[in-house]
Amino acid sequence: MKNYKILLQYDGTRYNGWQRQKNVQNTIQGKVEDLLSKMTGKQIEINGAGRTDAGVHAYGQVANVILDTEKNEAEIQAYMNRYLPEDIVVARVEAVEYRFHSRLNATGKEYWYCIQNGPVRDPFKRKYTWYIEETLNLDAMREAKNYLIGKHDFKSFCSNQRMKKSTERTIYSIHIDKKKDAIAIKLCGDGFLYNMVRIIVGTLVEIGNGTRNPEEMAEILMKKDRQTAGITAPAHGLYLMEVFYDKFVSEAFCKES
Amino acid sequence: MKNYKILLQYDGTRYNGWQRQKNVQNTIQGKVEDLLSKMTGKQIEINGAGRTDAGVHAYGQVANVILDTEKNEAEIQAYMNRYLPEDIVVARVEAVEYRFHSRLNATGKEYWYCIQNGPVRDPFKRKYTWYIEETLNLDAMREAKNYLIGKHDFKSFCSNQRMKKSTERTIYSIHIDKKKDAIAIKLCGDGFLYNMVRIIVGTLVEIGNGTRNPEEMAEILMKKDRQTAGITAPAHGLYLMEVFYDKFVSEAFCKES
Repeated sequence: MKNYKILLQYDGTRYNGWQRQKNVQNTIQGKVEDLLSKMTGKQIEINGAGRTDAGVHAYGQVANVILDTEKNEAEIQAYMNRYLPEDIVVARVEAVEYRFHSRLNATGKEYWYCIQNGPVRDPFKRKYTWYIEETLNLDAMREAKNYLIGKHDFKSFCSNQRMKKSTERTIYSIHIDKKKDAIAIKLCGDGFLYNMVRIIVGTLVEIGNGTRNPEEMAEILMKKDRQTAGITAPAHGLYLMEVFYDKFVSEAFCKES
Repeated sequence: MKNYKILLQYDGTRYNGWQRQKNVQNTIQGKVEDLLSKMTGKQIEINGAGRTDAGVHAYGQVANVILDTEKNEAEIQAYMNRYLPEDIVVARVEAVEYRFHSRLNATGKEYWYCIQNGPVRDPFKRKYTWYIEETLNLDAMREAKNYLIGKHDFKSFCSNQRMKKSTERTIYSIHIDKKKDAIAIKLCGDGFLYNMVRIIVGTLVEIGNGTRNPEEMAEILMKKDRQTAGITAPAHGLYLMEVFYDKFVSEAFCKES
C-alpha cells in the first residue's frame, strides 16, 4: 500500500463539479474513484485539494489516494489516461509519504479567471471564458484589487452564509493581465472560501464597467456581508491552476508571477 | 438590394460542415441561410468561400449574400450574433460591389492545421487539435513540405477520385511552427482540393514519426495517385484562417507569415 499524489487536469464543462455527492451523477471525483476501484478491485476514496464547482476547470488539481497495486507510477498514469473520459487527464502520478494529504497539507492555491473582452465573441472560447463586450477599465480594477491583498476577513465574498469556521484568509497576490482581448485575473492565496474567487471577479468586473468605484472594495470588505459585494462570475471562466505544499514556495511564487 | 460580404468564425464540432445539402441537418450554411431568410422574409442563399467539412473550424470563412433590408451593416451583424448559435459568430459585415462573389473571386486561402504533440494530452484541446503522443521530427517534416511549394498537380492529395476538373494548384507557402507542445502547420495557396490539406498533414505526420522518408513526398506528388499518400488527418485540427481576394496581397502575406 502506497500513498499517491495525482495531478489532474479537466475540462469541467460536462461535470457536476469535483466532489462526489449522494444522488449527484457525473462528478470528477466519482469518475476517478470508480476507475481506481475497478483497477484495484477495492472501494477507493480519493482526497481532492480543491472542491471545484460545476463547470469550473482545472489545470492543477491535486488529489491523493492510498492504493494497493502492483503497477508502478507510470503504469497507473497510463491506465487512468486510457480509461478516463477524454476531458479528464492525469498529468502526473507520484508515490509520496504516507501522511501526505492533498487538501489538509495545501499551503496555497492559485486560481485564474479568464475573460474575453472585445467587440466580437470568440466561438472557441464560449465554454472557457466569460465574454464581456464593453471594454473594462483595468486601471480601476487594479486599484480595487489592491484592497484585497493580505490577511482579511473575506466573509463578504463567501456564498456559504452558514459558514461557522473562520472566514479569514490571506491573499498573496492578484495580477490582472491583458493580451489582445483576453484578460486573466490571477489570484494566489492560502485558501479560498466557497465562491470567493467568483465573487471577487464579479465585483471587479462591476468596478471595471463603471457600476462601482474602486474604493467600494474596501467598504465591501469591511461590511462582512455577501449582499454588499458584486455578482458571482460564471463558473466556466474559472481554473484551478496550482496547489502549493510549501509555504515559502507558494508565497515566493505568488509574488513573482 | 445590396451585396454583403460576411466574415464568419465557427467551432465546427457540432456541424455537418459548411455546405447545405439535401437530407443533411445542421450545416453552417443552413443555419445562416435560415436566419437571414427569417430576418428578410425571403428565401436567402449565401455563397461560402470554402466548403469546410464536418468538424472543420473557421476563423476566417467569407460568404456573400444579396439582401433587401433596411438594416445597416452593424445592425445586420448584431441581429445575426443575437440569433445564431453560440458556436457561430459574425465578425464583420460589409456592403460590397454587386459583382463580388466570395468563392469565385477568391485568389487564395490560408489553412492552419493544429497538432498537440507531447506526453500528456490537454483536455481542453481535444476537439481543437490532433493529439499525437510520439515526438514528431520537425526537420524531416520541413524538408518534406518543401517539395509541395509551387505549382503542381496535387491529384495524390485529393479524396475525390472522380474529380474531372484540373487538380493543379499552387501552394505559396507552408510553415511548420512549434511552441511548447503545440504544432501549427500553416498552408497558403491559390486553392485546395477536397481533403487536400488533411492528406498533406497526414502524410507529413507519417514522415514526422518515421514511417516514411522526406524524399517520398516528391514521389507521391509524381505518382498522382491518392493511394500513395498518407492518411487523412482528422477534421477537428483544421481551421480555415483567411480567404484572400487580391493576388498580390495573398502571395505577399503568405511569404511573410
